[in-house]
Amino acid sequence: MSSSVRVRILGVGMGPHHVTGEVAEALRTVDYVLAAEKSDDDRLLALRQEILRQHPGPGGPAELVVVPDPPRDRSEGLSAGGYEGAVADWHDARAARYAEVLRQRGGTAAFLVWGDPSLYDSTIRVVERVRDLGVDLDFDVLPGISAPQLLAARHRIVLHEVGRPVHVTTGRRLQEAVTAGLDNIVAMLNPPPHRLDFTGLEDWTIWWGANLGAPGERLLTGRLDAVRPAIGEARTAAEARDGWVMDLFLVRRT
Amino acid sequence: MSSSVRVRILGVGMGPHHVTGEVAEALRTVDYVLAAEKSDDDRLLALRQEILRQHPGPGGPAELVVVPDPPRDRSEGLSAGGYEGAVADWHDARAARYAEVLRQRGGTAAFLVWGDPSLYDSTIRVVERVRDLGVDLDFDVLPGISAPQLLAARHRIVLHEVGRPVHVTTGRRLQEAVTAGLDNIVAMLNPPPHRLDFTGLEDWTIWWGANLGAPGERLLTGRLDAVRPAIGEARTAAEARDGWVMDLFLVRRT
Repeated sequence: MSSSVRVRILGVGMGPHHVTGEVAEALRTVDYVLAAEKSDDDRLLALRQEILRQHPGPGGPAELVVVPDPPRDRSEGLSAGGYEGAVADWHDARAARYAEVLRQRGGTAAFLVWGDPSLYDSTIRVVERVRDLGVDLDFDVLPGISAPQLLAARHRIVLHEVGRPVHVTTGRRLQEAVTAGLDNIVAMLNPPPHRLDFTGLEDWTIWWGANLGAPGERLLTGRLDAVRPAIGEARTAAEARDGWVMDLFLVRRT
Repeated sequence: MSSSVRVRILGVGMGPHHVTGEVAEALRTVDYVLAAEKSDDDRLLALRQEILRQHPGPGGPAELVVVPDPPRDRSEGLSAGGYEGAVADWHDARAARYAEVLRQRGGTAAFLVWGDPSLYDSTIRVVERVRDLGVDLDFDVLPGISAPQLLAARHRIVLHEVGRPVHVTTGRRLQEAVTAGLDNIVAMLNPPPHRLDFTGLEDWTIWWGANLGAPGERLLTGRLDAVRPAIGEARTAAEARDGWVMDLFLVRRT
């Protein structure tokens, strides 16, 4: 079993309609697709199957190999070191399980990444850990449409003013960005809005979205203090519709 | 001629292989595609034609309507107000020319945007100006793969460390970001590296790329002061190969 494994990390965007031509071509030529069990509630499993079904190879759609996921330790709380340490341990455990499958099966494997592999996604890091565990592999990465891009498209906006910057961060680090003087900030991985600290942003403009691309999609924009209660309600409505919720926003000083 | 015009702003990514399924579907149903003459040297014109050819509607590929572009006044120099003022005037002139075509032709028109319409692209703003000129139109936006995503994919990296931010700005504003204390910065719209101010970044890591997706594509990474001379040379080589050059990079404090 010493032959090299080829791993392809494929960004699939925010839904099957975002699959690019090059990712479609990749799907037609991979031997199988690895998916973590944990992230695959019925909805995501069905979406993965749908993507594979839409881009079959000569022998039919690629096989979806579901790998049981290690439990994630969230007991460390939200301190930066503890969070990053917990993430690292969890990546190691996940890598060990993927390594076993890749060693057994060989050939060309793919991972389907929601959104884009370059933004708040662990797949690249996990595959590097698999390699560090001694699996002889080479990998490449194909980009996909990310959530901030879809947020901008839905609101029909550019993410920044002419020639100016955009800062992309997490809801947890929003105030850190404001303190640094930044005035045009995308926040992802957000808790419910009542748990976000919007201090000092009351008169900023927000462009908010939840469950982009899903049936429960909700969009809101306006002056932050005016629209914030509606965001809480819309987030709850999106979750009630879809059974899950993922939201993000752009805030800009007016 | 009072019927409403539908305008679709379509992100096509960094090349025909990045066209998403939803953009392909849009291309099959538009009546024509508008392109600015200025931006269409032979290379870009050929790429647009290739994209249209790959996604024909029932009556064949959509027609490409090339609209003469107004001259762009660059005499204002690089001061922020002058730059933005010149951009605004130029958008107005461009909008007037598009308005004329859209009024005459009506139907469903599309613009193909290289990369993603949400990042350092003027198409949305120009279409809003067309509407402000009194053209009865509605528009939507579909996202495309952007240059920073392709840079990250080629280098097989995530654009930030775990749970941390990424700041996206222009080469001209790089030092502004460094002064604000940011330590993980993507810079686009760059001049040649000898005209960029990398003061204080000598020991940072850079991931650099030019002409991503084109035959002249070049990639370099390393400690900034060590790799900077090679970047200058690679940029020249990319330009010599393709007849144009577009580069960008990520820099991160080590």
